[in-house]
Amino acid sequence: MFVLGIDPGVSRCGYGALEGRVGGTIRPIAVGVLTTPPASPMPERLAELQRELRSLIEEIHPDVVVVERVFFQVNVRTAMSVGQASGLAMAEAINGGCAVAQYGPNEVKQAVAGWGGAGKDEMERMVQMLLGIDKPLRPVDAADAVALALCHLAHSRRLDMVAGR
Amino acid sequence: MFVLGIDPGVSRCGYGALEGRVGGTIRPIAVGVLTTPPASPMPERLAELQRELRSLIEEIHPDVVVVERVFFQVNVRTAMSVGQASGLAMAEAINGGCAVAQYGPNEVKQAVAGWGGAGKDEMERMVQMLLGIDKPLRPVDAADAVALALCHLAHSRRLDMVAGR
Repeated sequence: MFVLGIDPGVSRCGYGALEGRVGGTIRPIAVGVLTTPPASPMPERLAELQRELRSLIEEIHPDVVVVERVFFQVNVRTAMSVGQASGLAMAEAINGGCAVAQYGPNEVKQAVAGWGGAGKDEMERMVQMLLGIDKPLRPVDAADAVALALCHLAHSRRLDMVAGR
Repeated sequence: MFVLGIDPGVSRCGYGALEGRVGGTIRPIAVGVLTTPPASPMPERLAELQRELRSLIEEIHPDVVVVERVFFQVNVRTAMSVGQASGLAMAEAINGGCAVAQYGPNEVKQAVAGWGGAGKDEMERMVQMLLGIDKPLRPVDAADAVALALCHLAHSRRLDMVAGR
Protein backbone atom coordinates (compact mmCIF):
# COMPACT_ATOMS: atom_id res chain seq x y z
CA MET A 1 0.00 0.00 0.00
CA PHE A 2 1.29 3.44 -0.96
CA VAL A 3 0.47 6.16 1.52
CA LEU A 4 1.17 9.85 0.98
CA GLY A 5 1.21 12.03 4.11
CA ILE A 6 0.60 15.76 3.68
CA ASP A 7 1.40 18.35 6.36
CA PRO A 8 -0.66 21.18 4.88
CA GLY A 9 0.60 24.76 4.56
CA VAL A 10 0.73 27.40 1.87
CA SER A 11 4.30 28.56 2.52
CA ARG A 12 5.60 25.09 3.25
CA CYS A 13 3.63 21.92 2.57
CA GLY A 14 5.47 18.82 3.74
CA TYR A 15 4.97 15.46 2.07
CA GLY A 16 6.13 11.95 2.77
CA ALA A 17 5.24 8.88 0.74
CA LEU A 18 5.75 5.41 2.16
CA GLU A 19 5.15 1.91 0.94
CA GLY A 20 3.81 -0.37 3.64
CA ARG A 21 4.69 -3.96 2.76
CA VAL A 22 3.22 -7.23 3.83
CA GLY A 23 4.94 -8.25 7.05
CA GLY A 24 5.11 -4.71 8.32
CA THR A 25 8.22 -3.34 6.69
CA ILE A 26 8.09 0.22 5.46
CA ARG A 27 9.90 1.71 2.51
CA PRO A 28 10.22 5.50 2.05
CA ILE A 29 9.31 6.51 -1.52
CA ALA A 30 9.53 10.28 -1.59
CA VAL A 31 10.00 12.92 1.06
CA GLY A 32 10.11 16.68 0.68
CA VAL A 33 8.45 20.05 0.96
CA LEU A 34 6.42 22.01 -1.59
CA THR A 35 6.97 25.73 -1.17
CA THR A 36 5.38 28.80 -2.70
CA PRO A 37 7.05 32.22 -2.82
CA PRO A 38 5.80 34.43 0.05
CA ALA A 39 6.16 37.52 -2.13
CA SER A 40 3.63 36.28 -4.72
CA PRO A 41 -0.08 37.10 -4.44
CA MET A 42 -2.03 34.45 -2.52
CA PRO A 43 -4.21 33.30 -5.47
CA GLU A 44 -1.06 32.55 -7.53
CA ARG A 45 0.49 30.71 -4.59
CA LEU A 46 -2.62 28.57 -4.12
CA ALA A 47 -2.76 27.81 -7.84
CA GLU A 48 0.90 26.78 -7.78
CA LEU A 49 0.36 24.59 -4.73
CA GLN A 50 -2.61 22.96 -6.45
CA ARG A 51 -0.52 22.15 -9.54
CA GLU A 52 2.33 20.77 -7.44
CA LEU A 53 0.01 18.62 -5.33
CA ARG A 54 -1.60 17.28 -8.50
CA SER A 55 1.80 16.40 -10.02
CA LEU A 56 2.88 14.72 -6.80
CA ILE A 57 -0.29 12.61 -6.63
CA GLU A 58 -0.03 11.68 -10.32
CA GLU A 59 3.61 10.71 -9.88
CA ILE A 60 3.28 8.69 -6.69
CA HIS A 61 -0.16 7.19 -7.29
CA PRO A 62 -0.87 6.72 -3.57
CA ASP A 63 -3.74 4.51 -2.46
CA VAL A 64 -4.40 6.87 0.41
CA VAL A 65 -3.56 10.52 1.00
CA VAL A 66 -3.32 11.33 4.71
CA VAL A 67 -3.91 14.96 5.66
CA GLU A 68 -3.47 16.36 9.14
CA ARG A 69 -6.76 17.17 10.79
CA VAL A 70 -6.33 20.59 12.27
CA PHE A 71 -8.10 21.36 15.48
CA PHE A 72 -9.42 24.62 16.67
CA GLN A 73 -6.77 25.57 19.16
CA VAL A 74 -4.77 27.34 16.47
CA ASN A 75 -5.38 31.01 15.75
CA VAL A 76 -7.72 32.23 13.03
CA ARG A 77 -5.03 33.42 10.63
CA THR A 78 -3.31 30.04 10.76
CA ALA A 79 -6.66 28.28 10.37
CA MET A 80 -7.44 30.16 7.14
CA SER A 81 -4.08 29.33 5.61
CA VAL A 82 -4.02 25.70 6.74
CA GLY A 83 -7.64 25.40 5.58
CA GLN A 84 -6.69 26.62 2.12
CA ALA A 85 -3.80 24.17 1.80
CA SER A 86 -5.60 21.18 3.31
CA GLY A 87 -8.69 21.84 1.17
CA LEU A 88 -6.58 21.73 -1.98
CA ALA A 89 -4.83 18.55 -0.84
CA MET A 90 -8.07 16.72 -0.04
CA ALA A 91 -9.86 17.82 -3.23
CA GLU A 92 -6.87 16.86 -5.40
CA ALA A 93 -6.60 13.50 -3.67
CA ILE A 94 -10.25 12.53 -4.16
CA ASN A 95 -10.39 13.88 -7.71
CA GLY A 96 -7.13 12.04 -8.39
CA GLY A 97 -8.76 8.75 -7.43
CA CYS A 98 -7.24 8.31 -3.97
CA ALA A 99 -8.88 7.70 -0.62
CA VAL A 100 -8.34 10.35 2.03
CA ALA A 101 -7.69 9.76 5.72
CA GLN A 102 -7.31 12.38 8.43
CA TYR A 103 -5.74 12.16 11.86
CA GLY A 104 -5.27 14.74 14.56
CA PRO A 105 -1.83 15.50 16.06
CA ASN A 106 -2.43 13.35 19.14
CA GLU A 107 -3.52 10.35 17.11
CA VAL A 108 -0.31 10.63 15.10
CA LYS A 109 1.81 10.80 18.27
CA GLN A 110 -0.08 7.87 19.75
CA ALA A 111 0.44 5.71 16.68
CA VAL A 112 4.08 6.60 16.04
CA ALA A 113 5.55 7.14 19.52
CA GLY A 114 3.09 5.14 21.60
CA TRP A 115 1.53 8.02 23.50
CA GLY A 116 -0.38 11.16 22.55
CA GLY A 117 1.82 13.51 24.52
CA ALA A 118 5.08 12.67 22.72
CA GLY A 119 7.43 15.61 22.10
CA LYS A 120 9.09 16.69 18.86
CA ASP A 121 12.40 14.97 19.64
CA GLU A 122 10.72 11.72 20.59
CA MET A 123 8.68 11.77 17.37
CA GLU A 124 11.79 12.45 15.32
CA ARG A 125 13.65 9.54 16.85
CA MET A 126 10.70 7.19 16.27
CA VAL A 127 10.32 8.24 12.63
CA GLN A 128 14.05 7.76 12.15
CA MET A 129 13.96 4.32 13.75
CA LEU A 130 10.86 3.15 11.87
CA LEU A 131 12.36 4.18 8.54
CA GLY A 132 15.76 2.76 9.47
CA ILE A 133 17.66 5.96 8.64
CA ASP A 134 20.82 7.29 10.26
CA LYS A 135 19.88 10.92 10.84
CA PRO A 136 16.67 12.72 11.82
CA LEU A 137 14.54 13.39 8.76
CA ARG A 138 14.75 16.97 7.52
CA PRO A 139 13.10 19.37 6.87
CA VAL A 140 10.74 19.08 9.83
CA ASP A 141 7.63 19.59 7.64
CA ALA A 142 8.58 16.47 5.70
CA ALA A 143 9.13 14.52 8.94
CA ASP A 144 5.65 15.53 10.10
CA ALA A 145 4.18 14.32 6.81
CA VAL A 146 6.01 11.00 7.15
CA ALA A 147 4.61 10.65 10.68
CA LEU A 148 1.09 11.06 9.24
CA ALA A 149 1.74 8.33 6.71
CA LEU A 150 3.16 6.06 9.44
CA CYS A 151 0.05 6.73 11.54
CA HIS A 152 -2.17 5.57 8.71
CA LEU A 153 -0.12 2.44 8.12
CA ALA A 154 -0.36 1.64 11.83
CA HIS A 155 -4.11 2.20 11.90
CA SER A 156 -4.93 0.36 8.71
CA ARG A 157 -2.62 -2.62 8.98
CA ARG A 158 -2.05 -2.99 12.69
CA LEU A 159 1.68 -3.18 12.14
CA ASP A 160 3.94 -4.59 14.78
CA MET A 161 5.13 -1.12 15.69
CA VAL A 162 1.74 -0.45 17.22
CA ALA A 163 0.72 -3.88 18.45
CA GLY A 164 4.00 -4.36 20.28
CA ARG A 165 3.66 -1.32 22.45
CA MET B 1 -15.96 42.29 -19.08
CA PHE B 2 -17.27 39.13 -17.42
CA VAL B 3 -16.92 39.06 -13.66
CA LEU B 4 -17.73 36.06 -11.47
CA GLY B 5 -18.27 36.77 -7.78
CA ILE B 6 -17.80 33.89 -5.32
CA ASP B 7 -19.06 33.95 -1.72
CA PRO B 8 -16.98 31.03 -0.46
CA GLY B 9 -18.37 28.25 1.71
CA VAL B 10 -18.30 24.47 1.73
CA SER B 11 -21.97 23.93 2.57
CA ARG B 12 -23.18 26.81 0.41
CA CYS B 13 -20.98 28.63 -2.07
CA GLY B 14 -22.78 31.56 -3.69
CA TYR B 15 -21.91 32.71 -7.18
CA GLY B 16 -22.97 35.60 -9.35
CA ALA B 17 -21.69 36.33 -12.84
CA LEU B 18 -22.20 39.75 -14.40
CA GLU B 19 -21.27 41.35 -17.68
CA GLY B 20 -20.15 44.95 -17.29
CA ARG B 21 -20.75 46.75 -20.57
CA VAL B 22 -19.25 49.89 -22.01
CA GLY B 23 -21.31 52.80 -20.72
CA GLY B 24 -21.76 51.22 -17.33
CA THR B 25 -24.74 48.94 -17.86
CA ILE B 26 -24.66 45.60 -16.12
CA ARG B 27 -26.16 42.34 -17.32
CA PRO B 28 -26.61 39.36 -14.97
CA ILE B 29 -25.32 36.16 -16.59
CA ALA B 30 -25.72 33.46 -13.97
CA VAL B 31 -26.64 33.50 -10.32
CA GLY B 32 -26.91 30.60 -7.91
CA VAL B 33 -25.46 28.53 -5.10
CA LEU B 34 -23.24 25.45 -5.20
CA THR B 35 -24.03 23.13 -2.33
CA THR B 36 -22.43 19.97 -0.98
CA PRO B 37 -24.24 17.42 1.16
CA PRO B 38 -23.46 18.00 4.87
CA ALA B 39 -23.71 14.25 5.54
CA SER B 40 -20.83 13.40 3.16
CA PRO B 41 -17.23 13.21 4.39
CA MET B 42 -15.39 16.55 4.07
CA PRO B 43 -12.81 15.35 1.48
CA GLU B 44 -15.65 14.25 -0.86
CA ARG B 45 -17.45 17.56 -0.35
CA LEU B 46 -14.32 19.54 -1.16
CA ALA B 47 -13.67 17.42 -4.24
CA GLU B 48 -17.26 18.00 -5.39
CA LEU B 49 -16.98 21.74 -4.78
CA GLN B 50 -13.75 21.80 -6.76
CA ARG B 51 -15.39 20.03 -9.73
CA GLU B 52 -18.40 22.36 -9.63
CA LEU B 53 -16.25 25.49 -9.43
CA ARG B 54 -14.19 24.24 -12.36
CA SER B 55 -17.31 23.59 -14.46
CA LEU B 56 -18.70 27.01 -13.58
CA ILE B 57 -15.47 28.77 -14.56
CA GLU B 58 -15.22 26.77 -17.80
CA GLU B 59 -18.83 27.57 -18.65
CA ILE B 60 -18.80 31.29 -17.85
CA HIS B 61 -15.23 32.06 -18.89
CA PRO B 62 -14.95 35.08 -16.60
CA ASP B 63 -12.15 37.59 -17.05
CA VAL B 64 -11.99 38.02 -13.31
CA VAL B 65 -13.08 35.86 -10.40
CA VAL B 66 -13.82 37.92 -7.29
CA VAL B 67 -13.53 36.11 -3.97
CA GLU B 68 -14.47 37.60 -0.63
CA ARG B 69 -11.46 38.40 1.49
CA VAL B 70 -12.26 37.05 4.90
CA PHE B 71 -10.94 38.91 7.90
CA PHE B 72 -9.96 37.55 11.21
CA GLN B 73 -12.96 38.48 13.28
CA VAL B 74 -14.71 35.22 12.41
CA ASN B 75 -14.19 32.18 14.61
CA VAL B 76 -11.58 29.54 13.91
CA ARG B 77 -14.02 26.84 12.76
CA THR B 78 -15.55 29.20 10.20
CA ALA B 79 -12.08 30.33 9.12
CA MET B 80 -11.02 26.74 8.33
CA SER B 81 -14.11 26.06 6.27
CA VAL B 82 -14.11 29.39 4.44
CA GLY B 83 -10.38 28.97 3.89
CA GLN B 84 -10.95 25.58 2.27
CA ALA B 85 -13.64 26.92 -0.08
CA SER B 86 -11.89 30.18 -0.95
CA GLY B 87 -8.61 28.35 -1.56
CA LEU B 88 -10.30 26.05 -4.06
CA ALA B 89 -12.01 29.00 -5.78
CA MET B 90 -8.79 31.02 -6.14
CA ALA B 91 -6.68 28.07 -7.32
CA GLU B 92 -9.33 27.03 -9.88
CA ALA B 93 -9.62 30.61 -11.12
CA ILE B 94 -5.90 31.11 -11.69
CA ASN B 95 -5.38 27.64 -13.16
CA GLY B 96 -8.44 28.28 -15.36
CA GLY B 97 -6.77 31.35 -16.84
CA CYS B 98 -8.70 34.05 -14.94
CA ALA B 99 -7.46 36.95 -12.87
CA VAL B 100 -8.46 36.97 -9.20
CA ALA B 101 -9.54 39.99 -7.17
CA GLN B 102 -10.38 40.06 -3.48
CA TYR B 103 -12.36 42.60 -1.48
CA GLY B 104 -13.29 42.72 2.16
CA PRO B 105 -16.91 43.05 3.31
CA ASN B 106 -16.61 46.80 3.97
CA GLU B 107 -15.14 47.50 0.55
CA VAL B 108 -18.07 45.70 -1.02
CA LYS B 109 -20.59 47.72 1.01
CA GLN B 110 -18.76 50.93 0.17
CA ALA B 111 -18.76 50.21 -3.56
CA VAL B 112 -22.34 48.93 -3.80
CA ALA B 113 -24.26 50.96 -1.22
CA GLY B 114 -21.98 53.98 -0.91
CA TRP B 115 -20.81 53.41 2.64
CA GLY B 116 -18.95 50.67 4.47
CA GLY B 117 -21.52 50.32 7.24
CA ALA B 118 -24.49 49.44 5.00
CA GLY B 119 -26.88 46.82 6.40
CA LYS B 120 -28.17 43.65 4.76
CA ASP B 121 -31.46 45.24 3.63
CA GLU B 122 -29.75 48.26 2.16
CA MET B 123 -27.33 46.03 0.24
CA GLU B 124 -30.18 43.92 -1.05
CA ARG B 125 -32.06 46.95 -2.33
CA MET B 126 -28.95 48.34 -4.03
CA VAL B 127 -28.16 45.02 -5.73
CA GLN B 128 -31.78 44.82 -6.87
CA MET B 129 -31.71 48.37 -8.22
CA LEU B 130 -28.36 47.99 -9.97
CA LEU B 131 -29.47 44.81 -11.72
CA GLY B 132 -32.91 46.29 -12.52
CA ILE B 133 -34.83 43.36 -11.02
CA ASP B 134 -38.23 43.42 -9.31
CA LYS B 135 -37.54 41.35 -6.23
CA PRO B 136 -34.59 40.95 -3.89
CA LEU B 137 -32.13 38.43 -5.24
CA ARG B 138 -32.37 35.03 -3.57
CA PRO B 139 -30.78 33.00 -2.08
CA VAL B 140 -28.78 35.43 0.04
CA ASP B 141 -25.46 33.67 -0.72
CA ALA B 142 -26.01 34.41 -4.41
CA ALA B 143 -26.84 38.06 -3.66
CA ASP B 144 -23.59 38.37 -1.69
CA ALA B 145 -21.67 36.95 -4.64
CA VAL B 146 -23.35 39.40 -7.01
CA ALA B 147 -22.39 42.25 -4.66
CA LEU B 148 -18.75 41.12 -4.91
CA ALA B 149 -18.94 41.18 -8.70
CA LEU B 150 -20.57 44.64 -8.61
CA CYS B 151 -17.79 45.84 -6.31
CA HIS B 152 -15.17 44.74 -8.80
CA LEU B 153 -16.96 46.38 -11.72
CA ALA B 154 -17.17 49.60 -9.70
CA HIS B 155 -13.48 49.48 -8.80
CA SER B 156 -12.18 48.52 -12.20
CA ARG B 157 -14.36 50.59 -14.48
CA ARG B 158 -15.46 53.51 -12.33
CA LEU B 159 -19.04 52.98 -13.33
CA ASP B 160 -21.57 55.73 -12.79
CA MET B 161 -22.94 53.91 -9.78
CA VAL B 162 -19.77 54.74 -7.93
CA ALA B 163 -18.74 58.02 -9.49
CA GLY B 164 -22.17 59.57 -8.90
CA ARG B 165 -22.18 59.02 -5.20
